[in-house]
Amino acid sequence: MPTLKFAVLAGDYIGPEVMTEALRVLAHVARQENLTLAYTAADVGGAGIDRHGKALPESTLKICAEHDAILFGSVGGPKWEKLPPHEQPERAALLPLRKHFTLFANIRPGLLYRELTEASPLKTSRIPDGIDIVCIRELTGGVYFGQPKQTTTLPDGDVQAVDTMVYRRSEIERILAVAITTARARKKKLCSIDKANVLETSVLWRKTVNAYVAHHAPDLELSHMYVDNAAMQLARNPNQFDVFVTENMFGDILSDEMAVICGSLGMLSSASLGASKNSLGLPFGLYEPAGGTAPDIAGKGIANPCAQILSAALMLRFSFGLEKIATRIEAAVRKAVTSGTRTSDIAFGTDAVGTKAMADAIIAQL
Amino acid sequence: MPTLKFAVLAGDYIGPEVMTEALRVLAHVARQENLTLAYTAADVGGAGIDRHGKALPESTLKICAEHDAILFGSVGGPKWEKLPPHEQPERAALLPLRKHFTLFANIRPGLLYRELTEASPLKTSRIPDGIDIVCIRELTGGVYFGQPKQTTTLPDGDVQAVDTMVYRRSEIERILAVAITTARARKKKLCSIDKANVLETSVLWRKTVNAYVAHHAPDLELSHMYVDNAAMQLARNPNQFDVFVTENMFGDILSDEMAVICGSLGMLSSASLGASKNSLGLPFGLYEPAGGTAPDIAGKGIANPCAQILSAALMLRFSFGLEKIATRIEAAVRKAVTSGTRTSDIAFGTDAVGTKAMADAIIAQL
Ligand SMILES: CC(C)[C@H](C(=O)O)[C@@H](O)C(=O)O
Ligand SMILES: CC(C)[C@H](C(=O)O)[C@@H](O)C(=O)O
Repeated sequence: MPTLKFAVLAGDYIGPEVMTEALRVLAHVARQENLTLAYTAADVGGAGIDRHGKALPESTLKICAEHDAILFGSVGGPKWEKLPPHEQPERAALLPLRKHFTLFANIRPGLLYRELTEASPLKTSRIPDGIDIVCIRELTGGVYFGQPKQTTTLPDGDVQAVDTMVYRRSEIERILAVAITTARARKKKLCSIDKANVLETSVLWRKTVNAYVAHHAPDLELSHMYVDNAAMQLARNPNQFDVFVTENMFGDILSDEMAVICGSLGMLSSASLGASKNSLGLPFGLYEPAGGTAPDIAGKGIANPCAQILSAALMLRFSFGLEKIATRIEAAVRKAVTSGTRTSDIAFGTDAVGTKAMADAIIAQL
Repeated sequence: MPTLKFAVLAGDYIGPEVMTEALRVLAHVARQENLTLAYTAADVGGAGIDRHGKALPESTLKICAEHDAILFGSVGGPKWEKLPPHEQPERAALLPLRKHFTLFANIRPGLLYRELTEASPLKTSRIPDGIDIVCIRELTGGVYFGQPKQTTTLPDGDVQAVDTMVYRRSEIERILAVAITTARARKKKLCSIDKANVLETSVLWRKTVNAYVAHHAPDLELSHMYVDNAAMQLARNPNQFDVFVTENMFGDILSDEMAVICGSLGMLSSASLGASKNSLGLPFGLYEPAGGTAPDIAGKGIANPCAQILSAALMLRFSFGLEKIATRIEAAVRKAVTSGTRTSDIAFGTDAVGTKAMADAIIAQL
């Protein structure tokens, strides 16, 4: 009887509301499948700042380290928006977590059910069957963490700021391994996105991709695209991609563009896999919805819990090796939603249900 | 009788086809307005590589320097796509031109006429009146030109590549001056886009924007947005922006996302203004369509000349100070297109006209 040991970092505003429902879904499948849930909640984000003076308190980091995965909600909101950009909850919680656990592989499914194409800003004729693609973003390299990163006053009195974009071949190879695994489980099509006509890091990126895929995955259909063109192609015809892989900063921008094209952030999950293994010999990981804390609807019980529930499914898949149960949860979410139970973000004027009722409908499908 | 001295760099594939029509429109207004056209054609891009062994031959650079502006077509295509990314025509022509003439301010109107919303990938309900926004991109700084930019083998055998993103306060101030002028001529709304929660350059960017706008343009409504959010908001509701300003790399990505959302690249123009003045005391500048060389339709006489004609209008406005004539050309393009004369990219199944007939219809409106 396997035990699922994970840290629960629900965060702020709707974070705890949707987390409650994800935990209820997990409790349900645990009963069905004879699993033991052993999770520990900890403060993060605004809640961390308010109660411990830090968006990522030491105590929270310790709890994360003692478990096999992190189920993350969302953090930040108006209460802390006066803080300088570097101290804002999202940034001050997520970047240290990524760095500390070397969460180098961000996997974001860009999934829009055919029944929900109305939710997308794109014309339905462009996405008649919805959207089904995956963004793989390198998450611990590039301009996010590269040194030097500093501001100086020059002799002539001007002020100069510098960031450093840096990649090692080994960092590119490890994210490629994840991209290859993902592409193999789907259509065996991989698109690597870079800016090799301008950046040295992208030249290394492209060379490494070509060599690594030729050697380790000649079965894949590999293509390359410049990031500016990718930003166009995503909005023009997202399904021309199947799996795309890119560096940290480009992935930040493209994954969010992809998310909005998929209609509701309330439906989008993500996994950030670590370089080290958990106690089960599987990747330690952090799992979180793509969306934010939605302060405008917090406390009303109407937030869409699907993204949090789907993130929990990703946790079962990647950090606990429970592929079948993960797939079962994903199918239940799809069935519940496509058979008509919908929160207001995806209801299109029909009667919307609340957070709890949405989760109930999903549980009923399990 | 003012003389318009400009270099004509038509480039490859449809480049020369649409350039011919833009020059015809200019000749027409020159007759009407008693202007003298004094332009010199020069090879660039693939044509430069084929005839001089270089995408930007010295002779071409010299011709550019001897004139008051550059009217640029578009460059590149399948013929040269085997060349390494850094030697590809577009990159190898444009980056040195930008650097040589310090073309620091890229102005890209994101304009979609209400009558053409069908061309946009966005649902018409999101853009009932079309789109009318402007992207101002810093074009000579950031990670494009920052040093060091190099690849090294590390002692442990791993290979490491580095790019440097660097901005000086003075560089940020000069692009802001352009953004402020642009915003003042429109709705007095300016959105600055950065990644101040991660980048030092963005922290300096945001501080400089706040101080500069407070001092020089307190009449503007200023807002800030993170680049990932901007990528979402552009696709969700582009008209929430009026004028946005951003650094080089972010501008590369966002301006292309904006372009695709505006439907046809065949309608989008751009201006890249230089730091130095031309012989008229106005900014030297390079003017080019947002789209590429469209090799698939080259030689067929069906390319849309509007973007090139609108780019010529921008040249009249910025490098020759002929605001009224520029506006007249813009109005003529709008009238010709909205009254039904359309090339195939914007015809939506109705009868399409060719490149020359499109230009004729525009000239008829002048
Ligand atoms: C909060 C911020 C630092 C973070 C990022 O830029 O990676 C966020 O935008 C994300 O994508 O998770
Ligand atoms: C060709 C390339 C170097 C260039 C850029 O990245 O600036 C292009 O994409 C553009 O936007 O003009």
